[in-house]
Amino acid sequence: MSTSAVLEADSSTTSLTPQTVEEAHWRIAPHIRKTPVLGSDILNDWLGHELFFKCEGFQKTGSFKLRGALNALLSLKENNALPGHIIAFSSGNHAQAVAYGAKMLGIKATIYMPHFVSRVKQNATRSYGAELVLTHTRMEAEERVKELARQGACFIPSFDYDAVIAGQGTACLEALEEGVKPDAIFATCGGGGLLSGIYLASQLAAPTTQIFAGEPKNANDAAQSYRTGAIVRFHDSPPSIADGARTLAVSARTFHFLKKLAGFYEIDEETIIYWSQWLTHMLKTPVEPTSAVAMGAACAWLKGQKSKRRVLILLSGGNIDAASYQAIWRKDYLENRPEL
Amino acid sequence: MSTSAVLEADSSTTSLTPQTVEEAHWRIAPHIRKTPVLGSDILNDWLGHELFFKCEGFQKTGSFKLRGALNALLSLKENNALPGHIIAFSSGNHAQAVAYGAKMLGIKATIYMPHFVSRVKQNATRSYGAELVLTHTRMEAEERVKELARQGACFIPSFDYDAVIAGQGTACLEALEEGVKPDAIFATCGGGGLLSGIYLASQLAAPTTQIFAGEPKNANDAAQSYRTGAIVRFHDSPPSIADGARTLAVSARTFHFLKKLAGFYEIDEETIIYWSQWLTHMLKTPVEPTSAVAMGAACAWLKGQKSKRRVLILLSGGNIDAASYQAIWRKDYLENRPEL
Repeated sequence: MSTSAVLEADSSTTSLTPQTVEEAHWRIAPHIRKTPVLGSDILNDWLGHELFFKCEGFQKTGSFKLRGALNALLSLKENNALPGHIIAFSSGNHAQAVAYGAKMLGIKATIYMPHFVSRVKQNATRSYGAELVLTHTRMEAEERVKELARQGACFIPSFDYDAVIAGQGTACLEALEEGVKPDAIFATCGGGGLLSGIYLASQLAAPTTQIFAGEPKNANDAAQSYRTGAIVRFHDSPPSIADGARTLAVSARTFHFLKKLAGFYEIDEETIIYWSQWLTHMLKTPVEPTSAVAMGAACAWLKGQKSKRRVLILLSGGNIDAASYQAIWRKDYLENRPEL
Repeated sequence: MSTSAVLEADSSTTSLTPQTVEEAHWRIAPHIRKTPVLGSDILNDWLGHELFFKCEGFQKTGSFKLRGALNALLSLKENNALPGHIIAFSSGNHAQAVAYGAKMLGIKATIYMPHFVSRVKQNATRSYGAELVLTHTRMEAEERVKELARQGACFIPSFDYDAVIAGQGTACLEALEEGVKPDAIFATCGGGGLLSGIYLASQLAAPTTQIFAGEPKNANDAAQSYRTGAIVRFHDSPPSIADGARTLAVSARTFHFLKKLAGFYEIDEETIIYWSQWLTHMLKTPVEPTSAVAMGAACAWLKGQKSKRRVLILLSGGNIDAASYQAIWRKDYLENRPEL
């Protein structure tokens, strides 16, 4: 995969603080589901540690993305700046989140997505009343939205936006406020919005807890950026079954926080599929490959621990289409019981 | 599928009453999970009715079967009749339930199952400490256990046993006590234990509510029995993706209650797969094909209703192996949105 290093943009453009996440929490709480923190005694026995899973698949629209989208829209409304029409580009969960938020607030949404996005995701987005514009490529969707934004349209980005980052952080804050006291927290890195929000939430509720990122080995732009200290960008969408982590690059805004994490783990495709199967089986909720990456990272870290640890793993969502189910369950990994 | 009608045995052997279910509830409640009742606003919108799903996939061991097994074992213990060793035959969820119960009470369990049962189910049963005896056929497993029972071994049947039926009924009682006030209740008929328990629970908490059974069209022994008034028995295990409903025949004990139900719906294989996909997608918990049969029945009933109805659907479990996932997701039914 060809990459290029670019200079880090000025990150002083963010005014995010841990309190921003707390404010987001108060703002969106009446409108979202408080998702459950699940665990499995058997899995804990097998691994010799205590694992807590924040299951955002149960969130309305099926992923944590609703938190950021709603915080963005409700913040605009608070500031009397909510327009009658918003736009976004997404090939996944952010599309449904923005569409849901627009419907809730009674405004119009137009979502640009590449034509190859599964029909079920297109239909879900339309079912919230959004208009869909299908483009030839992912890049074309992105460019058309950015052009409209330059012309003054109200654009809700999927991660490079303070209110979105603060909203995503509420998933972690909820789990910490529920009393989970983890030694370490794990999440998957796509654009870095969720991990940035987690970092801020942990400053508020668990300031000594270490935060780690998992990323597919095949889509390791953020891990490379973390190692080298400069944002690395893929020229083409990298191949991974973890479709939520196939972003080309993190942003200056999210890199500002990603640099402060305790580490990155790069997870191979087989491990991602292994944990998609096992977590779905043990927790009885569909675990997207993108979410399973974080579990791979947690296991890599736990392997090096000398004493029993308690970890919190953010499972980002559970929207899986038929083609992905086929890909996940092609080989039977449930025959091989988890161990570290 | 060849069948034979047999005379109904004397059903006066059962001393089950609605109160037996209430007692079972008190007995097992400290040891089981109170499973959630889930629903989907979107699905309700699409269908024009209000649907409540009691999700027993979240039960320990992954199905409602734990309720019956634990009630049987704890009843024996209360009567100072708990032996040091119990036996059972099962090719599915009852095996894990009995193994779990035996481990909990510190006694030995030996489970007979046909060798072709998936490795993951074998492993799960072993992981609770049970001894597994693999047989050539389902019939052989059944016959060996019944022979040992005749010699005095303590045998926990999967449905033809009062304490098991009373235990299964607690799943319905829990949902009704939570305040769901359904016009009708739906569950899938295998041996009839769950539906018998539901009938008893409804007498206690919702005596005017109608109870309906769903059964795979391909495995319709109970529906035939219901229509003809005499138990119909298959000679061979009928082919259906709903493996929990492939029992050869109901028993005199369960038929006594099944005869009192408001109706049976026979569901084709495509509809079973359709609802396995859609319920998994909407509720974000894996829905076994066996559970999806009940949803097929609910839709068949709702289609004939003139006004908005409220229904409770018992989803029996969520243990799905890799081969079943492949079979369920071979074709993409999520492209066709549910409607009545």
